[in-house]
Amino acid sequence: MQHALRLGVAGLGTVGASLVRLVQRHGNELAVRSGRAVVIQAVSARSRGRDRGVDLSAMRWEDDPVALARAEDIDVFVELMGGAEGSALASVNAALDAGKHVVTANKALLAAHGGALARKAEAMGVSLNFEAAAAGGIPIIKTLREALAGNTISRVYGILNGTCNYILTRMEREGLSFDACLAEAQRLGYAEADPTFDIDGHDTAHKLALMTAIAFGSEIDAEAIYVEGIRSITSADIEAADELGYRIKLLGVATRSDSGIEQRVHPTMVPKSSPIARIDGVTNAVAVEADFVGRLVLQGPGAGGDATASAVMSDIADLARGDLIGTFGRPATALAPYRRATMPRHEGGYYIRLSVYDRPGAFAAIAGRMAEQGISLESIVQRRRAPRSDAPEHPVPLEPQPVVLVTYDTAEAQVKAALANVTADGHIAEQPQVIRIEPLA
Amino acid sequence: MQHALRLGVAGLGTVGASLVRLVQRHGNELAVRSGRAVVIQAVSARSRGRDRGVDLSAMRWEDDPVALARAEDIDVFVELMGGAEGSALASVNAALDAGKHVVTANKALLAAHGGALARKAEAMGVSLNFEAAAAGGIPIIKTLREALAGNTISRVYGILNGTCNYILTRMEREGLSFDACLAEAQRLGYAEADPTFDIDGHDTAHKLALMTAIAFGSEIDAEAIYVEGIRSITSADIEAADELGYRIKLLGVATRSDSGIEQRVHPTMVPKSSPIARIDGVTNAVAVEADFVGRLVLQGPGAGGDATASAVMSDIADLARGDLIGTFGRPATALAPYRRATMPRHEGGYYIRLSVYDRPGAFAAIAGRMAEQGISLESIVQRRRAPRSDAPEHPVPLEPQPVVLVTYDTAEAQVKAALANVTADGHIAEQPQVIRIEPLA
Repeated sequence: MQHALRLGVAGLGTVGASLVRLVQRHGNELAVRSGRAVVIQAVSARSRGRDRGVDLSAMRWEDDPVALARAEDIDVFVELMGGAEGSALASVNAALDAGKHVVTANKALLAAHGGALARKAEAMGVSLNFEAAAAGGIPIIKTLREALAGNTISRVYGILNGTCNYILTRMEREGLSFDACLAEAQRLGYAEADPTFDIDGHDTAHKLALMTAIAFGSEIDAEAIYVEGIRSITSADIEAADELGYRIKLLGVATRSDSGIEQRVHPTMVPKSSPIARIDGVTNAVAVEADFVGRLVLQGPGAGGDATASAVMSDIADLARGDLIGTFGRPATALAPYRRATMPRHEGGYYIRLSVYDRPGAFAAIAGRMAEQGISLESIVQRRRAPRSDAPEHPVPLEPQPVVLVTYDTAEAQVKAALANVTADGHIAEQPQVIRIEPLA
Repeated sequence: MQHALRLGVAGLGTVGASLVRLVQRHGNELAVRSGRAVVIQAVSARSRGRDRGVDLSAMRWEDDPVALARAEDIDVFVELMGGAEGSALASVNAALDAGKHVVTANKALLAAHGGALARKAEAMGVSLNFEAAAAGGIPIIKTLREALAGNTISRVYGILNGTCNYILTRMEREGLSFDACLAEAQRLGYAEADPTFDIDGHDTAHKLALMTAIAFGSEIDAEAIYVEGIRSITSADIEAADELGYRIKLLGVATRSDSGIEQRVHPTMVPKSSPIARIDGVTNAVAVEADFVGRLVLQGPGAGGDATASAVMSDIADLARGDLIGTFGRPATALAPYRRATMPRHEGGYYIRLSVYDRPGAFAAIAGRMAEQGISLESIVQRRRAPRSDAPEHPVPLEPQPVVLVTYDTAEAQVKAALANVTADGHIAEQPQVIRIEPLA
C-alpha cells in the first residue's frame, strides 16, 4: 500500500468541519476503496480557539494558509476559505507552485482565476479539482468531465442557488411577497444577512461559468454572463405563471451553437411539466442536453457542510486512486478561447407584464408597438381589478390594470424596442416586467 | 502522446452501431480530452453482410468474438453481445486471460458472474467496467463508485426498466388495462415480443444487483433478490393509488441496515410528491441516500443505442486516461460476503385490495384477522359498485365489492399471515392484491 495521502485543510467553517468529520468517520473505508489511506495532516483557520465540534488534536495547526499550502508534509491542499482574492488565491497559487494537488470548493476564485490556475497546475503536473464548487453535493463536474466524455453537449441549465429557489418556492406556495420570503430565508439560515450575492444571481453565474468551461471545452468567462436576479419577481408574476402553465425559477443557462456560446442567469418561466419545474426549496438540479445521451437531470443538495464535504471527498478519492484529469476535463492549453455568440439571443418566448392605464386606445397602441417589431402574441391576459363596492356601476378605473402578454419566439432586441416605445407612449404606469420563457421538454 | 487505445467491439446491434458512430464522430475530441486517441481496431458480430448504417471498412472483421478478445492488436475488449453465458462469457474470460481491459453493457453476465470476473480482472491487473449495464445513459455506476466514495450509503432505489414504466404511465394516463398497454409498448418497440424478462422484474433485478455490490461493498448476489413483476397491476390499483396520494412504480430497492442487506424488486406505491413518482414513460431514475450527501436523484434514458453507447464511452474514456478502478469501486478481494438481512422486512405500510363478498360480518371478520396480527389500518376505502338500474332499490349486491386497506408500518410476515386467514375464512372472491408502500421523502 502507498503512503497515506496527506491533506492540508485551510478553512474550518461548516464545510471544513464536515470534511474533518468525514475523514475521521470513513477513513478506513477510503483506504480499502483506493488502496491508500487519507489523513488530515494539518489545518489552518482564522481562529484557533473556536470550538468546531470536531477533534483536531491529531492535526498540526498552521496560522498561515500559505505556509500550510507549501508544507513539506502535505500532498493535497484543500482550500475551503472562500473569496476570489486574498488568502485563497495566494495559498492556492503557493500550493501549485510547490507541486501540491489542490482541491477547492471556491467558485468565486475559479470564476475569476480558473484558467490561469488550471494552466499552472498543468505546468506543475498536478491536479486542480473543484467538484464542490458547482451545485454542492451533485456530481455535475464529474458527470460533465468524465461520464459525458463521448458527447457533444448543446445546453446545460439548472437551479444552482438554493436561497433563490427557496424564496420562489415559498412565494408560490404561500402567496407571500418576495420581501417576506427573503426574511424567512434569513431567519432559517438559508440566506445571508447581505443576500445580494445569492438573490442577484452572481452565485449562480459563478457556478454556471465553471460548468460552461467543461461542457464546451472553452476558457472560463464569467464576465460574459448576462445576470439578472429575482428581486423584481412579484406575487402577480407567480400567479400569472401558474395560470399560463409555468413556474418561475432562477436558472443558469449555457448554450452552444454555431455562432458561439451564450451564458445567462435570469428568472425563467419553465413549463410545469419539465423536471426542473418540480425542484422545490433549497434543492438544486442540473440538466444536460447532449447528442448521444439525450438529456440527464441530476438533483440533490446544492449547499450545506456535509453535502459539500461529500463532493470535496470525491475529488480527494480521485487523487488517492491516482486519477489525474485536466481541471476542465482536458489540458488547460487545449481550452478554446471563449467565443461569445455573435447574435446572443434567448431562443423562446417572453412573458411581459404591464401596468396599463385603462384609457380608450391604450391597448391598441401597445398591440401596435408589438406588431411593429414583428412580435406575435401567443396569449393576452387582462384581468380587470374588481371595482370597489362604493364605485359607480360602470366605473372608469382610476388604477392602472395588469395586462400579461406572452409572445411567440422572438429576439430580445425586438422586445426591448417595442417596450421602449410602449413606455414612451405613456400608456403604462410602471417599468414593464419581462421574464424569459425557456423551451424545455 | 501515447499510442491510440485500440478497441475490439463484439456485437453490432443497436448499441454497437451507435458506439461505432460515436467513435467516428467524436474521436478527435476524445484524443484532445484524454491525450490519447481511441480507435475501433476490429469488430465481430453474427452476420457480416448486414447493413448497420455505419462504415466498418476501416475495421478488421473477426468471425469469432473469442479470437477478437485475444487479438494482439487490441487493448480493450468491448462486449456488447449480451447473454449471461455462451459467447459473452467465453470472450470476456478470454479477454481478461489475455490481459485486456473489458468494457461491457451486459447486466445478465455480471449479475451471474460479476464477482469471478472482477477477481480475474484484478489478478491480471486490468479493468472490467460496466457503466452501461445499469440504467443506460445515467452515470449511476460512476456516481456510486467514485462521486460518493466519502459516503456510507443506506439505500439505493430506482426505476430501472423503461418498458415497465412506460406501461404503468400509460395505464395511469389513459385508464387502459395492463394488456392493452403492453401491446402498445410492443408496437412501439419499447417491449420485446417475449416481454417476460422486463415485465416480471428480472431486468430490474440484474441492474439492482450491480448497484448493490458497489453501494454496499459486498459480493454481487442477484439470487438473493425478491422479485415481483407488474403483471398483476390492474386499473383498480392505479385508481386507488391515485386517490390515496400515490403512484405505482416498479422499483428496485436495496437497503443496508445492521442486520444486513435487503434487495427487492416489486411494484411499489410511492408518494406523488417524491421525485421518483414523477418519472414518466421510458425514462429511468435512480435515487441514492447516503450519510454525507443526503439524497441524490439522477434521471435520464435507461436504454437506447445512443444513450447506452454514451455510457460505454464513459468507461473507455476512463481507460484512455489511465484511470483503473476496481470493478465494484474497491479491490474484488475486499468485497464483503453478501450478508442477507436476517429479518428481511419491508419498512413501510401495505396497500391491500380485496374483493369481498358483501355479507353481514365479512368486514368485521377481515378487520379482526388484521388486528390478530397486530396490524393497524391507516385507511379503509370501500366503494360499493353502482347497482344496476334494473336492481331493486336496496339490493344485496351479488358481486363481490372491492375494498382497499392501507396499513401502517408492519412486517410482511404479519400481512401474509393475516391474508392467509382472510382467504381461509372464505370472505374474498380473488387472491388479495398486495402492494408495498415505500416511505420516500
